[in-house]
Amino acid sequence: MAGHKNLSRVTPKEMRLLIRKGKWVKPTPGVAMGYAQANLVILPEKYAFDFLLFCQRNPKPCPLLEVLEPGRFRTAFLASDADIRNDIPKYNIYRKGKLEKAVKDIKSLWSKDFVTFLLGCSFSFEEALLRAKIPVRHIEENKNVPMYITNIPCKPAGTMHGPMVVSMRPLPPDKIVRATQITSRYAAVHGSPVHIGDPSKIGIRNLNRPDFGDPVTIRKEEIPVFWACGVTPQAVVMEAKPDLCITHTPGHMFISDLLNEELATL
Amino acid sequence: MAGHKNLSRVTPKEMRLLIRKGKWVKPTPGVAMGYAQANLVILPEKYAFDFLLFCQRNPKPCPLLEVLEPGRFRTAFLASDADIRNDIPKYNIYRKGKLEKAVKDIKSLWSKDFVTFLLGCSFSFEEALLRAKIPVRHIEENKNVPMYITNIPCKPAGTMHGPMVVSMRPLPPDKIVRATQITSRYAAVHGSPVHIGDPSKIGIRNLNRPDFGDPVTIRKEEIPVFWACGVTPQAVVMEAKPDLCITHTPGHMFISDLLNEELATL
Repeated sequence: MAGHKNLSRVTPKEMRLLIRKGKWVKPTPGVAMGYAQANLVILPEKYAFDFLLFCQRNPKPCPLLEVLEPGRFRTAFLASDADIRNDIPKYNIYRKGKLEKAVKDIKSLWSKDFVTFLLGCSFSFEEALLRAKIPVRHIEENKNVPMYITNIPCKPAGTMHGPMVVSMRPLPPDKIVRATQITSRYAAVHGSPVHIGDPSKIGIRNLNRPDFGDPVTIRKEEIPVFWACGVTPQAVVMEAKPDLCITHTPGHMFISDLLNEELATL
Repeated sequence: MAGHKNLSRVTPKEMRLLIRKGKWVKPTPGVAMGYAQANLVILPEKYAFDFLLFCQRNPKPCPLLEVLEPGRFRTAFLASDADIRNDIPKYNIYRKGKLEKAVKDIKSLWSKDFVTFLLGCSFSFEEALLRAKIPVRHIEENKNVPMYITNIPCKPAGTMHGPMVVSMRPLPPDKIVRATQITSRYAAVHGSPVHIGDPSKIGIRNLNRPDFGDPVTIRKEEIPVFWACGVTPQAVVMEAKPDLCITHTPGHMFISDLLNEELATL
């Protein structure tokens, strides 16, 4: 959420145009504030049913915002003029589950059997937490959110299976109820916490050693609160080792025309 | 919800066993009260991605409770011991969108490429409305709920498209806010209303002539309240004219082990 103050008030359309022209190849937190950003997963059609089913069964780690029919690269719901092949600042190309390279557009790679999945991102609920004066430590410390692989199994679907990955935000006890209420409103962006308190209960040994992201300060009176994390679907797809998978490069998200507030259910 | 008082307290497992043995070939409203009942749609695999995508895009009319992998006939989430091929009192067999016949089990028809979809049903939220002393007219009058084809388009997905079908419950003005709050908790069973008031705004000409179900009394001071209806996905599938489609016979539902309360989101 930090940085890019000059672009915090740009519209999503203007931002996507900058990205499309190759003039913005940086992470997107803090740009076009108020608008929902989305995670990207593109898979060949033969993997699409399994992945769609996996998301249906695991909506907290895999909250689908939009899925495109095979071959389609224009969104209909999240934005009216977007082209998924070049409106994301940076893409990761994986073959058989291994990162091959990062690229600025995927026009030359595009195939008629590609199915595009766009998934909700916790940036949306963090904005709502901050508005309610609930501290978000990794933003205060200008770090990436700490993420941990848990012992909570996702519900498998066909070839897709794996443990849930969670993000952690330490909170003073008197803020936990409100933070739970606020994030419950945002089911489309991971929703309510999956665990509050003792990390060992969900298989996390050491909060200071996250599996992804950065460790953050946890103050004496604070309790760790865990939310399902969008890294889960990516980890699950990589484990299934598809011939090809394209994702956004972490932090380099798709910027939608939907206000975060439009994603709230209540 | 009426009738079957002697079976209202039977467990879902006992009820499914009665059905499996062919000892119950009647509608299921009012049996195993408190437990969620589900709509059934079975399609050959080649239609499954489109239908799953249609449900993802239209969660209010098509709230998925469970989807089984191709060929699977045992549920994992809604019940631990159920066999979808004979645990439903009566099935409708459609070919190319036309009803061919109704049967008591589908074991002889079963194919390894069948994909089973179980969808939420408004019986679940009606029980919650009744508990809050909100009148449900068609239950009071011992009728089927009135349903109407609207001019609200569903979001199409591949070969699947069509208008939303809604159910209507007339309410006194001072009950509408509470009814909206209560049904909002049940996103997995159609959720909050899609329209309140003037039926002509959603393309309904005459409330006394529902497209499905029975007309009900609307008292002078009452306002019609409309919810998305589970007939929508069936109408959409029929319109797509698949080679084969199997559904439950209307009113003859799958009885799950999940309490309606377990479906509530808040």
